[in-house]
Amino acid sequence: MLPDREFFDRLADAAKAETLPRFRTGISVVNKEAGGFDPVTEGDRAAEAAIRALIELDFPEHGILGEEFGNVGLDRDYVWVIDPIDGTRAFISGLPVWGTLIGLYHKGEAVMGIMDQPFTGERYFADGKTASYRGPGGDKPITTRTGVDLADAIMFTTTPHMYFGEAKTRFETIEGKVRLSRYGVDCYAFALLASGHIDLVLESGVKAYDVGGLIPLVEQAGGVVTDWNGGPAEMGGNVVAAGSPELHAQALALLKG
Amino acid sequence: MLPDREFFDRLADAAKAETLPRFRTGISVVNKEAGGFDPVTEGDRAAEAAIRALIELDFPEHGILGEEFGNVGLDRDYVWVIDPIDGTRAFISGLPVWGTLIGLYHKGEAVMGIMDQPFTGERYFADGKTASYRGPGGDKPITTRTGVDLADAIMFTTTPHMYFGEAKTRFETIEGKVRLSRYGVDCYAFALLASGHIDLVLESGVKAYDVGGLIPLVEQAGGVVTDWNGGPAEMGGNVVAAGSPELHAQALALLKG
Repeated sequence: MLPDREFFDRLADAAKAETLPRFRTGISVVNKEAGGFDPVTEGDRAAEAAIRALIELDFPEHGILGEEFGNVGLDRDYVWVIDPIDGTRAFISGLPVWGTLIGLYHKGEAVMGIMDQPFTGERYFADGKTASYRGPGGDKPITTRTGVDLADAIMFTTTPHMYFGEAKTRFETIEGKVRLSRYGVDCYAFALLASGHIDLVLESGVKAYDVGGLIPLVEQAGGVVTDWNGGPAEMGGNVVAAGSPELHAQALALLKG
Repeated sequence: MLPDREFFDRLADAAKAETLPRFRTGISVVNKEAGGFDPVTEGDRAAEAAIRALIELDFPEHGILGEEFGNVGLDRDYVWVIDPIDGTRAFISGLPVWGTLIGLYHKGEAVMGIMDQPFTGERYFADGKTASYRGPGGDKPITTRTGVDLADAIMFTTTPHMYFGEAKTRFETIEGKVRLSRYGVDCYAFALLASGHIDLVLESGVKAYDVGGLIPLVEQAGGVVTDWNGGPAEMGGNVVAAGSPELHAQALALLKG
């Protein structure tokens, strides 16, 4: 049996109870070096532990791939893919564009997912068929924006400094063609893409847990997520997400090796 | 007589009534070219008109410098400096790090200011002596983080692409020395600096209205804002804001022409 929305909400709530109280605590990241954990590391570990405990209770037959702890049963039919705090640099900086990402894979394919931003109170969810938003401004289904040509697209990437060599050349080629290129928001960019505010997200060298919770959101909102060669993005790598198949094809033509 | 907090709140509320309903409307920025106004331009103009109407009613003897409409009485003792939507690219992208900025100058010096982010419900205010925050997580005084060396600093800048020539060289010198450099959040970075989450903000070629509402926030929270030569930042230009005089001096030594 697949989990329902209520179960995903419980996971996100459990994570939020560990992350939000540690956000903007005023404890400098510099203190990290004075020994002991910094708030983001503490929040990361506590949130993942809370999520895993709930999964192991209700779905002991599922596998788990998480950022902070060891992986369990990756060969099982269902595997949970968890990033308790995606965007740790944003978290450290007090910028509320980090998120808790929880995806559910079935035989290697991302089928359900949630992205939660506790400070703004935004929760993006993909139930297996459709994507929805809950937060300020209401509770509503979301869809990507379509009919946008590459030349009119708004593109996000975490930082231009993560591209090297050939990937850098390809990134800059696309950046030179889009209408607007913006930096700095990790998972939040995928949520903006899924809800039709932006058109394209490029990332390089990401892990499975960086995208596992986001792929279902984008796909079930009408978008496309693959690696830069058009293959599955479920295990991370260089990732491209687009609001429409047409825009994805335009981007892929410039990204392909 | 100087305006009080209640008056600044009325200004911010009037702006919010015009901006927030136009945020994330799903109307593509692409439509701008099909004729008529786009949501951000509409919101920008309507918000500034609402702010100006309230100022003209209560403080007809004051001057006004705004982004969208003509300037009035810039030679008067008190001048209001208004950017109804700072961070229009964030606004267009659905990213809640834009803000309404309203500053009050006395004989050319920024003495009071407010930064409002309607979607997250955050309001940062400088009353002439102290700075405070109102929003999720409470209502509290804010102060900058001190005792942070340049090598441990978190720095924000809107985009590395706004630096050219010698400014680019100097920006990259500083970027190579800080602990963490992040892009993309306009006025929100100054609010994070004033509230002690980050340490340094660099901007290039900004207008008076881009910083007028922010200078009092940073200064009254304990920080320092100047141009890159250590002169006043009230009329914009290349701007550096730091959490402490010591860090400001370290940055200035690398930025000075």
